[in-house]
Amino acid sequence: MSIGQSAARVDAYDKVTGAAQYTDDMCPANALRVKLVRSTIANGKVLSVDVSEAVRVPGVVKIVTCFDAPQRPFPTAGHPWSVEKAHQDIADRYLLARRVLVYGDEVAAVIAEDEVSAARAAKLVKVEYEEYPPLTDVQDALRPEATTLHDEYPGNVLAHTVMRFGEGFDRTVQGRDCEVVEGEYWTPTVQHCHIELPVSFAWMEKDRIHVVSSTQIPHILRRIVSQALGIPVGRVRIVKPYIGGGFGNKQDALVEPLAAWLTTCVGGRAVRIELTREETFCFTRVRHAIQFRLKTAVLSDGAFLARKAELWSNQGGYASHGHAICANAASGLRNMYPDRELSYESDAWSVYTNIATGGAMRAYGIPQQAFALECHVDDIALRMGMDPLELRKINCMKLGYTAAGTGIACHSTGLVECMERGRDFIGWDGKRKLYRDQTGPLRRGVGMAIFCYKTGVYPISLETASARMVLNQDGSAQVVMGATEIGQGADTVFCQMAGQTAGIRPEDIRVVSTQDTDTAPFDTGAYASRQTYVSGMALKKTAESFKARILAYASRLLGRPAAELDLIGSAVVEQSGGKTLLPLSELALEAFYSLKDSEHITAEESVHCKDNTFAFGACFAEVEVDIPVGKVRIIRIIDVLDSGKIINPATAAGQVHGGMSMSLGYALGEELRYDANARPLNGNFLDYKLPTSLDTPDLYAGFVETDDPTGPYGNKSLGENPAIPPAPAIRNAVLHATGVAFNRLPLNPQRLVEGFISAGLIKEARQEAIG
Amino acid sequence: MSIGQSAARVDAYDKVTGAAQYTDDMCPANALRVKLVRSTIANGKVLSVDVSEAVRVPGVVKIVTCFDAPQRPFPTAGHPWSVEKAHQDIADRYLLARRVLVYGDEVAAVIAEDEVSAARAAKLVKVEYEEYPPLTDVQDALRPEATTLHDEYPGNVLAHTVMRFGEGFDRTVQGRDCEVVEGEYWTPTVQHCHIELPVSFAWMEKDRIHVVSSTQIPHILRRIVSQALGIPVGRVRIVKPYIGGGFGNKQDALVEPLAAWLTTCVGGRAVRIELTREETFCFTRVRHAIQFRLKTAVLSDGAFLARKAELWSNQGGYASHGHAICANAASGLRNMYPDRELSYESDAWSVYTNIATGGAMRAYGIPQQAFALECHVDDIALRMGMDPLELRKINCMKLGYTAAGTGIACHSTGLVECMERGRDFIGWDGKRKLYRDQTGPLRRGVGMAIFCYKTGVYPISLETASARMVLNQDGSAQVVMGATEIGQGADTVFCQMAGQTAGIRPEDIRVVSTQDTDTAPFDTGAYASRQTYVSGMALKKTAESFKARILAYASRLLGRPAAELDLIGSAVVEQSGGKTLLPLSELALEAFYSLKDSEHITAEESVHCKDNTFAFGACFAEVEVDIPVGKVRIIRIIDVLDSGKIINPATAAGQVHGGMSMSLGYALGEELRYDANARPLNGNFLDYKLPTSLDTPDLYAGFVETDDPTGPYGNKSLGENPAIPPAPAIRNAVLHATGVAFNRLPLNPQRLVEGFISAGLIKEARQEAIG
Repeated sequence: MSIGQSAARVDAYDKVTGAAQYTDDMCPANALRVKLVRSTIANGKVLSVDVSEAVRVPGVVKIVTCFDAPQRPFPTAGHPWSVEKAHQDIADRYLLARRVLVYGDEVAAVIAEDEVSAARAAKLVKVEYEEYPPLTDVQDALRPEATTLHDEYPGNVLAHTVMRFGEGFDRTVQGRDCEVVEGEYWTPTVQHCHIELPVSFAWMEKDRIHVVSSTQIPHILRRIVSQALGIPVGRVRIVKPYIGGGFGNKQDALVEPLAAWLTTCVGGRAVRIELTREETFCFTRVRHAIQFRLKTAVLSDGAFLARKAELWSNQGGYASHGHAICANAASGLRNMYPDRELSYESDAWSVYTNIATGGAMRAYGIPQQAFALECHVDDIALRMGMDPLELRKINCMKLGYTAAGTGIACHSTGLVECMERGRDFIGWDGKRKLYRDQTGPLRRGVGMAIFCYKTGVYPISLETASARMVLNQDGSAQVVMGATEIGQGADTVFCQMAGQTAGIRPEDIRVVSTQDTDTAPFDTGAYASRQTYVSGMALKKTAESFKARILAYASRLLGRPAAELDLIGSAVVEQSGGKTLLPLSELALEAFYSLKDSEHITAEESVHCKDNTFAFGACFAEVEVDIPVGKVRIIRIIDVLDSGKIINPATAAGQVHGGMSMSLGYALGEELRYDANARPLNGNFLDYKLPTSLDTPDLYAGFVETDDPTGPYGNKSLGENPAIPPAPAIRNAVLHATGVAFNRLPLNPQRLVEGFISAGLIKEARQEAIG
Repeated sequence: MSIGQSAARVDAYDKVTGAAQYTDDMCPANALRVKLVRSTIANGKVLSVDVSEAVRVPGVVKIVTCFDAPQRPFPTAGHPWSVEKAHQDIADRYLLARRVLVYGDEVAAVIAEDEVSAARAAKLVKVEYEEYPPLTDVQDALRPEATTLHDEYPGNVLAHTVMRFGEGFDRTVQGRDCEVVEGEYWTPTVQHCHIELPVSFAWMEKDRIHVVSSTQIPHILRRIVSQALGIPVGRVRIVKPYIGGGFGNKQDALVEPLAAWLTTCVGGRAVRIELTREETFCFTRVRHAIQFRLKTAVLSDGAFLARKAELWSNQGGYASHGHAICANAASGLRNMYPDRELSYESDAWSVYTNIATGGAMRAYGIPQQAFALECHVDDIALRMGMDPLELRKINCMKLGYTAAGTGIACHSTGLVECMERGRDFIGWDGKRKLYRDQTGPLRRGVGMAIFCYKTGVYPISLETASARMVLNQDGSAQVVMGATEIGQGADTVFCQMAGQTAGIRPEDIRVVSTQDTDTAPFDTGAYASRQTYVSGMALKKTAESFKARILAYASRLLGRPAAELDLIGSAVVEQSGGKTLLPLSELALEAFYSLKDSEHITAEESVHCKDNTFAFGACFAEVEVDIPVGKVRIIRIIDVLDSGKIINPATAAGQVHGGMSMSLGYALGEELRYDANARPLNGNFLDYKLPTSLDTPDLYAGFVETDDPTGPYGNKSLGENPAIPPAPAIRNAVLHATGVAFNRLPLNPQRLVEGFISAGLIKEARQEAIG
């Protein structure tokens, strides 16, 4: 199926039948099992570890503690490395922690022949701590009396970035006739909840360490493991099989450096670490909770004149992706409504605390930013008495906009059309009126939100990718990517791209889904919705080279200039007229086995991408709010996206449905909560309210296809995007339905009921009954 | 270590410690087990198979019989495919046999959850046959009354080739004053006895079949499996891990097509087939027993005037490598002594019988040829009263010789020097005299033999290879070969070659030893001692491209023309003067991560080799024969080889030791024997007399290094060569010691005693005692 067609996923059959191989399927049966001994405090220092009783448990092979592990700090973020020190990720992790910063930090590791022995022994390891008061709240961590968590960051501020565009809020509004709207918005700590738990096994051959892992970033992980162990990159090999979801959590080095080190502790025997669901919730990465304070000056016609923002991001115990996420949120606040007159200033802080470390999670700061800003825009519309849709149309990013800090330009936009499609779908104009003056316990409303999202990480970071194609004897070809399938359907669209560009029937293209860093072309991996764009560029270039090499061989074989030939549908044809000259299968057989002129036809290309482009979208939701019980029912909801040209409408829609589902959870139920000791209260699927299929309404996906001039196939970012706007659209619909502005996610029953009581929609008696 | 140095084997550590992964190490624990139901007759037809009782055995998943299997004949030989029908291998194998041609042919396959259930059920499968008289002997198979084994080959002659060079024996000798010497020589059926048994497992993903196997020829196997199953090549993937020896047996499709088909019978579940040692002996491949009838006319000065040869090769039940081996022996008879005056004519027959199928085994017909011819040459020397060494010097191939049939030229030769080195080592001149007139039960003798051996298969067949190199962030590089390490040390010399040509420290070169046909460059595999030569050419070309790409990047980075730069010892240096400009590790880091100019540096090249060259060697042996007990003790033995430039003297010597050991077994003990029903009599390590280390004398290896102009590094064939001359050298030493010419291998005690009785060296009484 060529580009633009809904080709079936290339991995569908294997994933449905169970034939697809995941990390754990590949683990040798005799691999040693690891149980990690985790800290029982969230902030403190390990004084001693006593393993004397634990080592006596039969089956235990070795126990290593934080006092055995090298104290070489390493970074964990899935970013391309930088040769410039200033741009390198913060190295603040250790293989095992002597300084404990998160409840559950790894203090020791028990390696045993089986799970049971490992678990039994782990319970017998005795750890003595020196404890400091735990910090869960950003504002608490900023207080002068708070313990400094990292010596290099006194005051616990990992970073503070300042953006100033224009003359500044006060100077801009001075003397102008404008309304100033202020608001404060909070997003919660949430977890990715990928199906497959973090799992990894490692073994040694000679002086090399081999790691098989469920990761989004095999090539980056190779470098991180080498840094963590202090060995050259070439002595590490990473293999990435199919993975059962990542959503950014696996865009980080999780258990891999430890697995790699542990195999060196047992003579190179295979060592397997799999986290439990509870460990994954509590001790891997989370989406940063961010507190936003926004202030916007609006002219009477609705034009935004100036905006000021403050952001405080709860980083948790370690840097991971560092300040990048909070900074991305800050620049997103500017990019969405960058009217030329707008003055924009922001201060963004990432602050260390003792909760789980914030890292990448689907859309990298923008779900937080969009929640704050899109709530704020509806608050402005309410104050101004304007239609929120019209207000957005006036102020949103237009074609030709260039972001001042990054130089990223708006090369194409279908945003307004997205809004129009959403308006029609939801019946916006009618329902905005219809639901205006409701009474009673059940009230309906419609809300919307928009977003813009970049494509890849240029120019903040390196964008590079490569690909390889290999011809087989039957005229079929393998595509070997460094880019990774992580469930998003990358492999399928890569086959479509390669087939289309090379002129080979898509059914004859097979993608090698497992990345082995020894042989897979280099690519930084699956994040930033970059792969169809950046890796797509590399693949397009590769497919062009591949086709050129095939035609060069055809030229020799047929005795005609290559320029007269073309490859279409797996056949060499006359460029003018299209007459079929030779099936590719015959050419391939000849190229392999000719006694006169044999050649192994392959192609490999790398690209350094120096561009970026904005994708857009809008969500429209209609909700019914049950005021007394604080419940929101989604009646209808749609994400309409401008992701440029859609390579595969069916799998794109699948991505949208998944993203919307995540955002529904973000809107209505999910929040990882901590007690005063920074211990997670609900780190499991019983207590953490992830929506199930029964909680999920019908999800609608719409696409406004633009043809982006920078995308290899006119395409722009798509994977993360749909997870951005539903939460604010739902909040705005609740505002429309009830007149109550909820500024803190999630909109769960307790929060709603409290809000309705404050707003007088629920009477005191009811409050007492609940209280 | 660069070329010419004794670098340690790159796989030594892993093979010694057990870290190296072989096929069975990679087999999933839940793979289904297969037991093959084998025919209990050697010649006949399956009338019916009754599985009714067998399927009731608990644990049995499925039983398939020859009546279930597709009747699509396929070839099994590890030859490159030919696009010309006439050059394609004979397709006479079926996945399961209805027409039984070898005792033990696979008639049905039991697939079960475990070995025990499979074996129990296999015993309960009842097979009815129609039986025909079995044929074990070639001359019997040629009789008119013999059953025709393959309808396409009436009279059981697979092929008969005729060579005629010169005017013919009779015309040439007519009127010339010459001596005519005739002799008849027999070589036995022997088996490879590789340590690792044939093992393979297969599973399906989507519509593709994946096969992991202990094979020398992954890319060829991919094609064979596709032919056997009637599916496109692209739907088959072969993975070849480390293998525990092959020696040609694994240059054939053994269990792989069946494993591939069986997984399709159980819905794609993993299916594993491992043969037992007994199955391997009796039902895989063997070295052809060949009967030679030779006649040579010799002038009084010792010059060979004319030779006439007849060869009958026992092909066993199936074609496998077909007539190629016998034809190779026939052309070897000419090439070794191709004095310009020589008239040569030969008739060579490959004849189907009902014993195990003859296939490739180390040196492909030349051990047989060399035994016959080198015995014959000593017989001539004896008749002429000449020194066998001098006789060989007069007549052996000289520089500049071009073989008439193939056009293969003698580009370099150190043969005479090999003989001189052997003469010195063994003390030839003195001992030839010293041992002249011995009496008593213990007698000593010295003997010698020489050989020539081609390098690769050009122009008989396609010679093509390719390689890929991949730069890592630390300046190290992977070498990815299609060529296979099969224990011979290929990976080690590839690292030396790549390092030397690219200018990278050998310790920074890592070879990817596992070939995966999806990603490994195409190469036909390990056979014909071709890899250092043909694959070496591909690797050299690749390393040159790789270096050029590195220097091109260095040129951009340093702002200097690439022509002024060189890469030496993993550093970019000034070409003139050699000043170090940039370590490769720094360049690599920049190439990966530069925000200005990032590039993933790799290189891949394929070559079509259209050349071949002769390697040479000589073996000298001193033996002591215990006449009454018929025992030969090797006192000293040396192989002196001209294999061109030696890439790695230590591993080359290892190859020589191994080859000599195989030839000692060939000389003195090994023979796979059959009863009248064509059932193997000694197909196991108790009864088949493979020499152990205790049977093996000190083995000496010598090299006369020539610099072959066609070899990529001056090198020529080496792997198979040392296995050629020891057997005839020992026979000739026994002749020297005792005056008795043994013309049939092996020279085991029974044969020797019988010979000494015939020759009158042992008296009648003794004969009776033995009889």
